[in-house]
Amino acid sequence: MDLMTIIGLLGGLATIYYVLVEGNILHLLVNPVAFVLVFGGTFSATLIAYPWNTLKHIFSAFRLMFVGRQHSDDDRQQLIDQMVLLAEKARLKGVEALLRDVEHTKDPFLAYSIQMVVDGLEHEVIKDNMEKRLLYTHQHNHKINGVFRTMATFSPIFGLLGTLIGVVQVLRNLSDPSSMGSAMAIAITTTFYGIFAANFLFLPTAIKLGDLNENEILRQEIVAETVLCISQGDLPIMVRKKLNAFLITHLREYESASASR
Amino acid sequence: MDLMTIIGLLGGLATIYYVLVEGNILHLLVNPVAFVLVFGGTFSATLIAYPWNTLKHIFSAFRLMFVGRQHSDDDRQQLIDQMVLLAEKARLKGVEALLRDVEHTKDPFLAYSIQMVVDGLEHEVIKDNMEKRLLYTHQHNHKINGVFRTMATFSPIFGLLGTLIGVVQVLRNLSDPSSMGSAMAIAITTTFYGIFAANFLFLPTAIKLGDLNENEILRQEIVAETVLCISQGDLPIMVRKKLNAFLITHLREYESASASR
Amino acid sequence: MDLMTIIGLLGGLATIYYVLVEGNILHLLVNPVAFVLVFGGTFSATLIAYPWNTLKHIFSAFRLMFVGRQHSDDDRQQLIDQMVLLAEKARLKGVEALLRDVEHTKDPFLAYSIQMVVDGLEHEVIKDNMEKRLLYTHQHNHKINGVFRTMATFSPIFGLLGTLIGVVQVLRNLSDPSSMGSAMAIAITTTFYGIFAANFLFLPTAIKLGDLNENEILRQEIVAETVLCISQGDLPIMVRKKLNAFLITHLREYESASASR
Amino acid sequence: MDLMTIIGLLGGLATIYYVLVEGNILHLLVNPVAFVLVFGGTFSATLIAYPWNTLKHIFSAFRLMFVGRQHSDDDRQQLIDQMVLLAEKARLKGVEALLRDVEHTKDPFLAYSIQMVVDGLEHEVIKDNMEKRLLYTHQHNHKINGVFRTMATFSPIFGLLGTLIGVVQVLRNLSDPSSMGSAMAIAITTTFYGIFAANFLFLPTAIKLGDLNENEILRQEIVAETVLCISQGDLPIMVRKKLNAFLITHLREYESASASR
Amino acid sequence: MDLMTIIGLLGGLATIYYVLVEGNILHLLVNPVAFVLVFGGTFSATLIAYPWNTLKHIFSAFRLMFVGRQHSDDDRQQLIDQMVLLAEKARLKGVEALLRDVEHTKDPFLAYSIQMVVDGLEHEVIKDNMEKRLLYTHQHNHKINGVFRTMATFSPIFGLLGTLIGVVQVLRNLSDPSSMGSAMAIAITTTFYGIFAANFLFLPTAIKLGDLNENEILRQEIVAETVLCISQGDLPIMVRKKLNAFLITHLREYESASASR
Repeated sequence: MDLMTIIGLLGGLATIYYVLVEGNILHLLVNPVAFVLVFGGTFSATLIAYPWNTLKHIFSAFRLMFVGRQHSDDDRQQLIDQMVLLAEKARLKGVEALLRDVEHTKDPFLAYSIQMVVDGLEHEVIKDNMEKRLLYTHQHNHKINGVFRTMATFSPIFGLLGTLIGVVQVLRNLSDPSSMGSAMAIAITTTFYGIFAANFLFLPTAIKLGDLNENEILRQEIVAETVLCISQGDLPIMVRKKLNAFLITHLREYESASASR
Repeated sequence: MDLMTIIGLLGGLATIYYVLVEGNILHLLVNPVAFVLVFGGTFSATLIAYPWNTLKHIFSAFRLMFVGRQHSDDDRQQLIDQMVLLAEKARLKGVEALLRDVEHTKDPFLAYSIQMVVDGLEHEVIKDNMEKRLLYTHQHNHKINGVFRTMATFSPIFGLLGTLIGVVQVLRNLSDPSSMGSAMAIAITTTFYGIFAANFLFLPTAIKLGDLNENEILRQEIVAETVLCISQGDLPIMVRKKLNAFLITHLREYESASASR
Repeated sequence: MDLMTIIGLLGGLATIYYVLVEGNILHLLVNPVAFVLVFGGTFSATLIAYPWNTLKHIFSAFRLMFVGRQHSDDDRQQLIDQMVLLAEKARLKGVEALLRDVEHTKDPFLAYSIQMVVDGLEHEVIKDNMEKRLLYTHQHNHKINGVFRTMATFSPIFGLLGTLIGVVQVLRNLSDPSSMGSAMAIAITTTFYGIFAANFLFLPTAIKLGDLNENEILRQEIVAETVLCISQGDLPIMVRKKLNAFLITHLREYESASASR
Repeated sequence: MDLMTIIGLLGGLATIYYVLVEGNILHLLVNPVAFVLVFGGTFSATLIAYPWNTLKHIFSAFRLMFVGRQHSDDDRQQLIDQMVLLAEKARLKGVEALLRDVEHTKDPFLAYSIQMVVDGLEHEVIKDNMEKRLLYTHQHNHKINGVFRTMATFSPIFGLLGTLIGVVQVLRNLSDPSSMGSAMAIAITTTFYGIFAANFLFLPTAIKLGDLNENEILRQEIVAETVLCISQGDLPIMVRKKLNAFLITHLREYESASASR
Repeated sequence: MDLMTIIGLLGGLATIYYVLVEGNILHLLVNPVAFVLVFGGTFSATLIAYPWNTLKHIFSAFRLMFVGRQHSDDDRQQLIDQMVLLAEKARLKGVEALLRDVEHTKDPFLAYSIQMVVDGLEHEVIKDNMEKRLLYTHQHNHKINGVFRTMATFSPIFGLLGTLIGVVQVLRNLSDPSSMGSAMAIAITTTFYGIFAANFLFLPTAIKLGDLNENEILRQEIVAETVLCISQGDLPIMVRKKLNAFLITHLREYESASASR
């Protein structure tokens, strides 16, 4: 459960609410015309830009924003421990013994990779296949990510278009001040919706998804390294030494090191 | 047939229509001067920027927006099945037996690659030639794509120019409110056309073409991998194992895996 | 002779003329102050940014816009035929026989490369030298190209500066409407010149030059591949098979292939 | 202690103070609504965009702005001297003798690398592990850096939103000039806060952190090179010759060389 | 002596002077508040962004704008001649004989590289060290360059801030036209200073420095190639053939070749 997403959204709404109340323009917040222009325009343009095979993934990607969790260093340490256990089991009981673990795992990449070792594929072929699969997973994620970046580009532009329409109406009604209200409402609300959608919905989603994906790729790289070690029969202690390279030198440590010099 | 393109275009037009009707400025929608400025300017600048040998491809590229289809994972699975069949045939009856399949195929890259195997070229030369051809196909597609991105850059700028002209006319006629109408019409309509053309026509076309091209390159990479396997006499079961690496680990699976951890 | 450049320029001028006449502001088109500001500013900034050794090439680069010609696929096919002939001659009469062809060729890269083969340099050294020369030619072209991109960045900024100056004058003369004319003239004309120069002159030139250069590099890569084949004594039929990889799979073919699936 | 950061911040505040006093609008400087909008909006959007595991590092990163120190060439020379001493010790007393130095070092990367040599890992494995660790450290730093760049993108946009709100209020109160004061206060102060935050806080922090990180990576590359030399038993004099390559040819020297030609 | 820099600066000043005189607003040119805001803001932000170890190089970099000289093809030809002479001397009298040349050279990279050959380092180590040194020199130059690009980003933003302040003052004094003068002066002059500084000082400096640096790197690559040839004992005639690859095929030649086809 990603608390940050929820705190951020609530904080954003509170900020906007406070500012509009202070500015005495809270009544401008809800405007169906502005809503249709910004979101109708953004989604229509997105539909033209991306095929259904890509778009169908964005709902589950959006859901990831709330349920996804970035791994901490502890998670990474824990994964390395699991992988070393796997390597020990392979060493003691043979790779076939891993088949049962693979059946119960929820990680399809681990299952796929171990299956190749059990099938007795050559070391080079296993390596090639895992690299290809990592590459295409990365490309797939990057494409989903691009949808949100594209929407973050479209929404402020449609907001701007609404402002333009509002300004024209204001100019037309200069002689009739009473009718300027609704014109101004569109002008401000569309820009407002455009900026809100881009900066609180689409852009942060794209950034956080990118982070989660990078995280997942790192996980799979640890799995891939382990499978390669198992495939060439490395000793478990060697596996741990190799996997330790995935633990980064933290900024905190680096900071204490550089501060004391 | 790409339904998304059509739904997106209709949705975009409906959005614009609704907003203009609500804003009581539907009469501003059609304006020949704005049309000439935005589209005349954009196409003239594009003609200067690109040679005919590049421009002549953009009509068929535009047509792809409606008839092109992004491959689903099922399509990719089906292609892999076909390729494995091809590898089996090559194994059983020899590569010469593939010549007939090649004659009837609609995929020029497959025909070209198989021909090289039948001609008995060295493995390394076949690999080099296929890589070069993939690279130049990619560069060619990228260039066509660039035309649409360039047009998406030009059209809002000419829209802005029209707005500037409109504003000057408004300022000149401040004393004569009756003549401000047509000046404002140009001001709003050119920006409107510029934004519409960039965000509903040119930019989405560039994005979707990029997606379709990436898709096609992936198809050709599967073909290339198969041809390389045939060229070095891999067993069909090995071919399938290698090609399976092109099936990405789906986000759905990954999501369930990461949510449950 | 590049017709597109001329059609594009005429089309751009016609568009501008039509819009200004329709807007009744054709008299704003010629304004020496705006001309000095936009072009004086752009060229001065460019002079500071680039050394003379780079700038001296931009006139001939500009000329290329009118006389340069992007090669069609037929041109590429024809070049490949010539190269295969060269390889046959080298095979039959020895590389020394190529010296006469080289003397009469107008392609300095071909002359340079054949000379190295005749001189009996090692295969690896020939390859290294040709790659280096291609790289530096590419860098050189890229730098010339960058001059036009830089000018396309500068000119609208100086246009904006002029608009700012014009707006200040308008504000100063609010009480004296008669003098607002010339102030507005500068405001609109500088932006107009800035946009025109960037979008009809500098940016399209940069794009088309990039296209022509890419084209030329591809030509030289075909020459380089041929020379390498000659250097290692490949059979002419082999040379043709290798060079065929430079003929791209056309979008048309790909389209028919993907539409029918 | 990084004096530049402090001088820069004081200089920035002095500049702003002087300009506001000169413009007689110092009273606009403090405005709680603008503060909430710009910083509340920026931080909320950042919370949505980044998971806690990334965000928790930004405080120590911010602290680095004041205590971090870019190494001068002398520091680099000094580090090389230390490394050569280490190589000499390894040569004379064996790598086990380095274990004590490693215990007392404040550089975790040095400790980690030497430990691998003492453990007797293969040269290739040590090299791979160190490269991986450098890569992940670089990626980690780059991500922290990205948080500040993202905030530098968000803050002026929320400033713009505030200006928009202010302008709407000004337009609404055209008939009541006395109430225009607070509207204008929001309009100017939000943009002001947005620009100040982006250009004095977030962007410079991102740039300087990038510099410090690049610096640290260079340090670790010197350590890695040394450990590799020790691992393959290079003579100390050889180690020094190799490490000297990390001392750049200074611009000053190059300048004198190019000026005199 | 780089005449272009001086001609460009004078041309820029003349352009600005002419336009301001024509617009009758020359008295706006000098404004201490605008000067403090734009330059104080830009330099303060730059101080926060970069550590002193980087900033201390920008004065000598700025001086390079006037004394630096981009090498013509003749200079490159001349350097190649010198290098071939060096290779001949090494061949005839041994590498030790080069030590005296090295002592008197003003090129520290040549001295450093020859010293390694004389010291009898292995070919591979010499190559590695020279590549590393070229890489770090490139990174160092790139960083200095980045300072100017950053300043070119900051200065128009502070100009914009000044315009905003000016506009607020104009709006406040709508009832008192006489006091609008100084407000407008700040509005126009800050933007003016910001654009002038970015487009006549910082950006052109960054571009020209990049050009000079690229030039210097090319020089050092010629030196490096020569030293490698000497290290492996190539014949002087071979050295010349290899170095000739650094002479680019000129656009002029290419143009005549492509125009005649």
